[in-house]
Amino acid sequence: MIIDKDNGFEIIIGKNKLLSHSKENPSIFLGYGKEKIDMYRGNFDINDYLESRIPLRNFNIAGNIISFYEDGKTILKMEIKDNEITFENYSNYNRFWIRLNATKNEDIYGCGEQFSYFNLRGKIFPLWTSEPGVGRNKKTYITWLADVEGKAGGDYYTTNFPQSAFLSSNMYYCIVDSSVYMKFDFSHVDFHEIEVWDIPKRISFITGENYLEIISKFNKYMGIQPKLPEWILDGLILGVQGGLEEVNKKLEKLSEVKINALWVQDWVGKKITSFGKRLFWDWKVNEKYYPNLKEYIEELNKRNIRFLGYINPYLIREGELFKEADKKGYFVKNKKGDTYLIDFGEFYCGTIDLTNEKAFNWYKEVIKKNMIDLGFSGWMADFGEYLPIDCVLENGDPKEMHNMWPVLWAKLNYEAVKESGKLGEIVFFMRAGFNGIQKYTTLMWAGDQLVDWSEDDGIPSVVKSFLSSAISGIGYTHCDLGGYTSLFEVKRSKELMKRWIELSAFSPVMRSHEGNRPDDNIQVYSDEELIEYLKKMTEIHSYLKDYLLYYIDEYQEKGIPLIRPLMLHYNVNSDKEYLLGRDLLICPVLKENTKNMEVLLPEDEWINLWTKEKYNGGKYVVNSEIIPVFYRASSKFKELFDNL
Amino acid sequence: MIIDKDNGFEIIIGKNKLLSHSKENPSIFLGYGKEKIDMYRGNFDINDYLESRIPLRNFNIAGNIISFYEDGKTILKMEIKDNEITFENYSNYNRFWIRLNATKNEDIYGCGEQFSYFNLRGKIFPLWTSEPGVGRNKKTYITWLADVEGKAGGDYYTTNFPQSAFLSSNMYYCIVDSSVYMKFDFSHVDFHEIEVWDIPKRISFITGENYLEIISKFNKYMGIQPKLPEWILDGLILGVQGGLEEVNKKLEKLSEVKINALWVQDWVGKKITSFGKRLFWDWKVNEKYYPNLKEYIEELNKRNIRFLGYINPYLIREGELFKEADKKGYFVKNKKGDTYLIDFGEFYCGTIDLTNEKAFNWYKEVIKKNMIDLGFSGWMADFGEYLPIDCVLENGDPKEMHNMWPVLWAKLNYEAVKESGKLGEIVFFMRAGFNGIQKYTTLMWAGDQLVDWSEDDGIPSVVKSFLSSAISGIGYTHCDLGGYTSLFEVKRSKELMKRWIELSAFSPVMRSHEGNRPDDNIQVYSDEELIEYLKKMTEIHSYLKDYLLYYIDEYQEKGIPLIRPLMLHYNVNSDKEYLLGRDLLICPVLKENTKNMEVLLPEDEWINLWTKEKYNGGKYVVNSEIIPVFYRASSKFKELFDNL
Repeated sequence: MIIDKDNGFEIIIGKNKLLSHSKENPSIFLGYGKEKIDMYRGNFDINDYLESRIPLRNFNIAGNIISFYEDGKTILKMEIKDNEITFENYSNYNRFWIRLNATKNEDIYGCGEQFSYFNLRGKIFPLWTSEPGVGRNKKTYITWLADVEGKAGGDYYTTNFPQSAFLSSNMYYCIVDSSVYMKFDFSHVDFHEIEVWDIPKRISFITGENYLEIISKFNKYMGIQPKLPEWILDGLILGVQGGLEEVNKKLEKLSEVKINALWVQDWVGKKITSFGKRLFWDWKVNEKYYPNLKEYIEELNKRNIRFLGYINPYLIREGELFKEADKKGYFVKNKKGDTYLIDFGEFYCGTIDLTNEKAFNWYKEVIKKNMIDLGFSGWMADFGEYLPIDCVLENGDPKEMHNMWPVLWAKLNYEAVKESGKLGEIVFFMRAGFNGIQKYTTLMWAGDQLVDWSEDDGIPSVVKSFLSSAISGIGYTHCDLGGYTSLFEVKRSKELMKRWIELSAFSPVMRSHEGNRPDDNIQVYSDEELIEYLKKMTEIHSYLKDYLLYYIDEYQEKGIPLIRPLMLHYNVNSDKEYLLGRDLLICPVLKENTKNMEVLLPEDEWINLWTKEKYNGGKYVVNSEIIPVFYRASSKFKELFDNL
Repeated sequence: MIIDKDNGFEIIIGKNKLLSHSKENPSIFLGYGKEKIDMYRGNFDINDYLESRIPLRNFNIAGNIISFYEDGKTILKMEIKDNEITFENYSNYNRFWIRLNATKNEDIYGCGEQFSYFNLRGKIFPLWTSEPGVGRNKKTYITWLADVEGKAGGDYYTTNFPQSAFLSSNMYYCIVDSSVYMKFDFSHVDFHEIEVWDIPKRISFITGENYLEIISKFNKYMGIQPKLPEWILDGLILGVQGGLEEVNKKLEKLSEVKINALWVQDWVGKKITSFGKRLFWDWKVNEKYYPNLKEYIEELNKRNIRFLGYINPYLIREGELFKEADKKGYFVKNKKGDTYLIDFGEFYCGTIDLTNEKAFNWYKEVIKKNMIDLGFSGWMADFGEYLPIDCVLENGDPKEMHNMWPVLWAKLNYEAVKESGKLGEIVFFMRAGFNGIQKYTTLMWAGDQLVDWSEDDGIPSVVKSFLSSAISGIGYTHCDLGGYTSLFEVKRSKELMKRWIELSAFSPVMRSHEGNRPDDNIQVYSDEELIEYLKKMTEIHSYLKDYLLYYIDEYQEKGIPLIRPLMLHYNVNSDKEYLLGRDLLICPVLKENTKNMEVLLPEDEWINLWTKEKYNGGKYVVNSEIIPVFYRASSKFKELFDNL
């Protein structure tokens, strides 16, 4: 609703006066900038030379439409309809800023998957899908080293899955309909400023009485993920590799552990780089390491074990599929019209042009033929963040398509699965995302953690990823059990591995990862103690199957995510705890050597899952030799929990 | 000269079309910004929230005056007279940008004392006097450590002595008359952009046929330094401390070395901090360590050895002078009206308000009474960079006075010396500076190098400091022989010490420094080999006295600095070599373990000072076990050099 004021106007959305504009204090600006966006292995250097930034002081209001003009000419029209503001651009400007009113104690969440902060207030968040970074904190030595050695350190905001949408504690969700580079600035006292490197089509708002209502509406608005299959709740997805013989050996070692699937990344063969063992990105079975894979999978299936693989939207120059795609002109091109080769760290690849319908369909067939037909029950659908802006696409501007790439990549996987009639059975999991990924991706995972305890890139960042994903429309997510990146002197400790086993057991999906340097790091199958702990935790995870199924149905119907920040149900908040479903409160152990820890219990009646002690809301120091977990005394699953 | 064009105008200065402005491509912008400038121990965090940046598309030309207007109202007037553009502001804007035309192969020098780059083209240079930084390169480990431990790492542009003036290879010097925060951006292909956080009063240009002519004019324009006394050329200024007994012991050790002065920083007593030994900033002799100092100095003088001390514009809270100044209200205040205490690293000080005439005069008397009357022949006039912008001054806005502080500090020292009738006899030396420092400061020094070989903060940065200072109006500069900062694991090596002895010998003034951690580092008096080398090099330095005196006179008369970049006399350039006077080419050894090195000899006839071998212009690999030095065969001092 527009309120016409002397010399200005206000826009009311729901209960909030979100925009206050006047000649003296304009809240909308247009300008012109020249960006420089360089990429090195998925890490971006982004700079803008800002030539102008013009406050739109002059305007007319006619009904729902506000026209802004400069030198007597209309440069921007803005239409307000219900909870939506649409824009029409009549200028040559390519930068847009809008300020929304902020209040003093307001909290902000969302912006996609965030690893360093859950509450975003006080910070600026650039939105550009990229490598998440190694260390992600300029004050840590690892980050500095990664920056110096490969521009790879990242920062508090670097993420595979940004999203131009945020939730305010003033009870609205704001969604900016654009996919160019954006910057959401929550650092000011009395306004939030949204910067868009283009004029956005639309800004939409979702309002409601409380967080739960808003999140439910928002998740439906963004799209509900395809339903997670039952089999994935029943045991552990074991990440192993090294050829059939090796895989069987590891499986044998874990014969006591309930395993629902093998996840075998190197089904395509390997390439050794200084970073670690990398896969040979030519998506067809490597007969040397995995002879008669189809038959092997069939036998596994008989034992109720599925087989998962790995793929991404790139093809290695030395592979056979590259040759075919290159010949057909299916790759993203450089300005000269040649295939744009991207450096992935000691090897070069072509990027399938997902805006080219023929290429898109061809790649779908690769998945169907080389993976689904072989009996795969899923795969990691990795990457999607590396589209450079100086490329040439079949359709569209790379500056707009960069952020959309993960969505196209998800859509491709989704269609391959759907067209094979396997939706709800096959699960592919992604780390990259952007607005709209939700309706396509069957499962997300929290990207590549460092195998340490660091706040911004170690195990604590998983919890923030879970929480921010939940606010960002993701119903189903999980993480690499054990973390991923081992670089420089950073190696997994046994203690960290145990904490990661617990954390994964109390998450929607358990999947172990050997990491980038399997031989240098401890593995879930390394010793008896770990195997025993994994067995126990996998049993507990499987025991929760009916409980999780109930909340999977609730997500499908109402859009309420499996992992829930406390704020969805209580008047408190935390970036260290979460609810799994409605009734389980998970307090993961995120620090080394923690025998006891303080937990925050929201106002309710809680029962300690391990000791069956009863608690009311409040802060308590509890034993944390095993991960502290509580269930609601009033849960309809109380008996299930009581009997654990 | 203004050339009126259809839809625009051009401004010609000398032979250059320096400004091209049109409605479509404006070159002048005004805007509004809100800065945030935080200081931690002399290191500044500077951020600007830019609200607007308006291209000044609309203008009228009337004679020499161009008026720019917005919404029909004049907001800026610009008058062009000879080589000067003056501005009159009629708006509330507080940001100003002007673009000067750039050419493709243009080189840029100046911007005060620069340690990382001599040629500034391709980079952006913020101009704000500050600590120079430890490491000064975000890619080095030392810089990272210094940043993490104390925000002290600095960057390629951090300097004690910025100056809002630059020299273009298109044969003009551009001087921006302002002292607020500025940013000179030489990173664009076809323009240089000057950003000023205020509307500047004036931009002046100095043009000429060649560099020498322009530098000569520029140096006279900025002011000529008071003449360096003869005594300073005759031997070494020995930096020692630790009380009279200790000082005498060190002097004894160096009895074979020609010493012209003792520089005793700790005449005021000491304070131990984690950084190292710091001085007790209460500017009066410490009778315990230096009993009967006046008599001691008189005796030294009889032996032709002078005595130099140390002072800065701050007073330690625990000292007696602080009490007096505090009572008299002579300190810079905070917003509450109390004395603004500045953290200097584990101790707090008041800043003498140099804009308060009474305070200024009182501090001058402190220098006269406590230093000059005692027989001091000079001192380090340290610091000047720490004025925070949230303080309250007797006169003036801290945002304008921050950069001017070093100039006021120089003026105070200058007046104290002048009023004592000792100009040309007493020498004080400064590291901090800004536009206008030249006419006051008797000698500059190159700030606090790390005691290592690093490009941005080690011995190589001295040469860039020498070169950039020479371009920036400084006739007399020198450096800490041995460097200053020893932190973390960085310690002086004997080899580095020898290289620094050589470098100092072939600079205007030789002065040794024990560094911030004297006990942990090798000293010039540490062993026989170093003493022998110091003796030899001091003799050579003293031998050059007549030669240097000749060029001191030339500087006083023509404004040509003692240290000269090759470009002043030749059609080549280097940031690793310099001329000392007209005829000596110095090629300092800036890398470890360099037995031979390549030198660049400009087109001329050169004679190797050590071997007497003759060379024409070109690149040669020469023996560098001793610093390579060449003299011109045509020098009027040839005989002097021949006989060395």
